[in-house]
Amino acid sequence: MTGDLGRIIQFITEMDKLKAVLRKTKPVGLDRYENSAEHSWQVSLLALLLAPHARQPVDPARVVEILLVHDIPEIDSGDQIVYRGRNEARTAAEREGARRIFGLLPEPQAGWCMSRWEEYEARQSNEARFAYAVDRLMPVLQNLENGGQSWRENDVPLEKVLAVNAAIGEALPSVWEDLEVVIRERFGTER
Amino acid sequence: MTGDLGRIIQFITEMDKLKAVLRKTKPVGLDRYENSAEHSWQVSLLALLLAPHARQPVDPARVVEILLVHDIPEIDSGDQIVYRGRNEARTAAEREGARRIFGLLPEPQAGWCMSRWEEYEARQSNEARFAYAVDRLMPVLQNLENGGQSWRENDVPLEKVLAVNAAIGEALPSVWEDLEVVIRERFGTER
Repeated sequence: MTGDLGRIIQFITEMDKLKAVLRKTKPVGLDRYENSAEHSWQVSLLALLLAPHARQPVDPARVVEILLVHDIPEIDSGDQIVYRGRNEARTAAEREGARRIFGLLPEPQAGWCMSRWEEYEARQSNEARFAYAVDRLMPVLQNLENGGQSWRENDVPLEKVLAVNAAIGEALPSVWEDLEVVIRERFGTER
Repeated sequence: MTGDLGRIIQFITEMDKLKAVLRKTKPVGLDRYENSAEHSWQVSLLALLLAPHARQPVDPARVVEILLVHDIPEIDSGDQIVYRGRNEARTAAEREGARRIFGLLPEPQAGWCMSRWEEYEARQSNEARFAYAVDRLMPVLQNLENGGQSWRENDVPLEKVLAVNAAIGEALPSVWEDLEVVIRERFGTER
């Protein structure tokens, strides 16, 4: 197939590669690492469910668009655990990946994907901050169910878990208020 | 966590089970079957990209909502290849699954999920028909890339492939017009 439709089809076939990008977290009940494609589905759904609880009003459709594309550059740069922090090289690699991959699409789709990804990276809009909070929340919930699997395997200290995930509280204060207590109770004494 | 937020968290943790529901198709380039969670992400994204090409106008946000929830009842009933057709027992099992799983949620989220799932099942709205077309399109594209893997493994004859996927043409006529030619060219002579 040629033309714009052919380019969309080429792009969505390329997306199968995100199913091979492994994250550090295992799905609850499964003895394997989750991939960034299935994770993207789960956080998109969670965002729709939690949108009414957002501290600042958000457009749920826009949040979902952000979350559906937010991990796509990992096809080129791989997943990196949030606790390692970011540096210029990492940011540049992700931007390069975004340019190549979204560039497979015709306009306006290429620009639309790029703008949603950039919105997420910038964390300036309510939607981007809420999307980031939901993206942080999901692995915390998984860790609470599986004994802190990804925190243990990557030697993340409790205080770093709490500091990084405080971003959840900025968008979902009532969620983070309870979670912080549970995390301290469950993982505080053993360290 | 208790109350409505606790129920949303319980539900999204349950969603990890959809990552263990295997479909009949393998992602392009991967030697494993894909699961319904990563598939749900991919078709949601594809729907956003193809919405401007829909024959009847659709609300993209609603299509995405439908596609994010459409496979969730498979947590209880499993995936079934579309070429086996549907019967009353299958439909009843899926409805039972939808009731149990969406019932984990508080209102209004439970009713919202159920209504999107029922809309998909009924195929009466433009959004549901478009969502169904995109859901059919994705495995066709994967089959074209991997030698008709799921069609071969499940002994699906060419004419059945063409008949079932003609639903793509109802919502995306320009896509199906080209695809039908390609499928016949590639798989027509050998059967």
